[in-house]
Amino acid sequence: MTTFKLVLEYDGTHYSGWQRQLNVPTIQAALEDALAAIAQTRLTVVGAGRTDAGVHARGQVVSFRTDRGLSQREWLRALNAHLPADISALSVDEVAEDFHARYSAIGKLYEYHVMNRSERAALLRERAWTVYRHLDVAAMTEAADYLLGSHDFSSFETAPTDNENPHCRLQQLELRRHGDLVIFSVYADRFLKQMVRTLVGTLVEVGRGRRAASDMRTVLAARSRPAAGRTAPAHGLYLVRVDYAGDPIPYGP
Amino acid sequence: MTTFKLVLEYDGTHYSGWQRQLNVPTIQAALEDALAAIAQTRLTVVGAGRTDAGVHARGQVVSFRTDRGLSQREWLRALNAHLPADISALSVDEVAEDFHARYSAIGKLYEYHVMNRSERAALLRERAWTVYRHLDVAAMTEAADYLLGSHDFSSFETAPTDNENPHCRLQQLELRRHGDLVIFSVYADRFLKQMVRTLVGTLVEVGRGRRAASDMRTVLAARSRPAAGRTAPAHGLYLVRVDYAGDPIPYGP
Repeated sequence: MTTFKLVLEYDGTHYSGWQRQLNVPTIQAALEDALAAIAQTRLTVVGAGRTDAGVHARGQVVSFRTDRGLSQREWLRALNAHLPADISALSVDEVAEDFHARYSAIGKLYEYHVMNRSERAALLRERAWTVYRHLDVAAMTEAADYLLGSHDFSSFETAPTDNENPHCRLQQLELRRHGDLVIFSVYADRFLKQMVRTLVGTLVEVGRGRRAASDMRTVLAARSRPAAGRTAPAHGLYLVRVDYAGDPIPYGP
Repeated sequence: MTTFKLVLEYDGTHYSGWQRQLNVPTIQAALEDALAAIAQTRLTVVGAGRTDAGVHARGQVVSFRTDRGLSQREWLRALNAHLPADISALSVDEVAEDFHARYSAIGKLYEYHVMNRSERAALLRERAWTVYRHLDVAAMTEAADYLLGSHDFSSFETAPTDNENPHCRLQQLELRRHGDLVIFSVYADRFLKQMVRTLVGTLVEVGRGRRAASDMRTVLAARSRPAAGRTAPAHGLYLVRVDYAGDPIPYGP
């Protein structure tokens, strides 16, 4: 048996998220169907990030094990022949036997795209959250700086479970404006459920002047979801990169 | 009667181009339907650029005349309420009575997006042309420089008509690489049919090493479509801006 690491890009618009569920289209199911057609047997895959319905990926990482003897190049061609047009395999590599896309990950980079203008978006309607009121990027950046570092991020977690570790090391939370588009880059060693979307939703309240930047201290300290702002919609979120120890490019934001 | 100038953004994927035709969805028809619902009478609109099927717009300009007495703000709200989600009205302004979106235009800016990587695009599959072989941007830039200026661009025109002026003043033809994306910016006083797509298709042949940059002189001099390269696909093209004399922002590339 060989373990493979696969990098996927996808448009999440028409999927009920990453994880396989009964009777709805998911990325995992589409990928497992493609692999079954190639390997002539069912394989189970592990994704690094369990992206929600509508969330996109430019670099989701997936691991799977098989004894099907194809070269990396053959896997890539076969996958792109069998996957639907809105999912694309970018690379396939043989990795150490114990590689696990989720448990071996040491950091993840997400982007969140906000279209900030007074009229609705046609071209990016499924790719960015449109916020109609002007956003103050300087105020949001000031607020973001309070959130950097190692904290209990329970206030930014949807439906927390009792036995989950709520501590994350948030290494990057940056905003850049490119014309009407405001792009958030968020890097951490691990993320809680809907954490990026809640960080963005809360920062947007700061950007609209509804909260002070210094509120972020209170929100963190509360360790309670109602202390934070709304959850930003799924369709502005992109899983960009997942890092592993030993990657050729040094990990980090 | 008042003349209005309307700026539209659209995703051209699901339309058979700008111009109204029988039994197929077009941008013009969708807009005229929305205007009919608002004005309670049929209006005819004029578009600055007659974009082909699949071509997108970030700033198509449209003129129409009506005696329906709505404020600019009311027109904008009503249009975005009636237009489908893949067409968005960005601004509506009262203009001089003789303003004509096509005949009054003094320059247009297009962008063409090429995704240059070895695997197919999932997220940008309807927004960029994927070219799998590496493109040499320096060679394409050298070729582009031969095309700048006032020339007879007949070699870059699809299905020319006898009585059309084939001379255009190409003021900008620039390429920038952003990661895997190569963006062409093309500005001219006027364009011939499918001219941007043929310029891009020809430059891509230079970028792949199939033509020398200096070939561009021969191609221009031939004044014959077969001398140029293939027509790049429609879905990578964006009409970005249309300029008029007296615009608050000085016209030009």
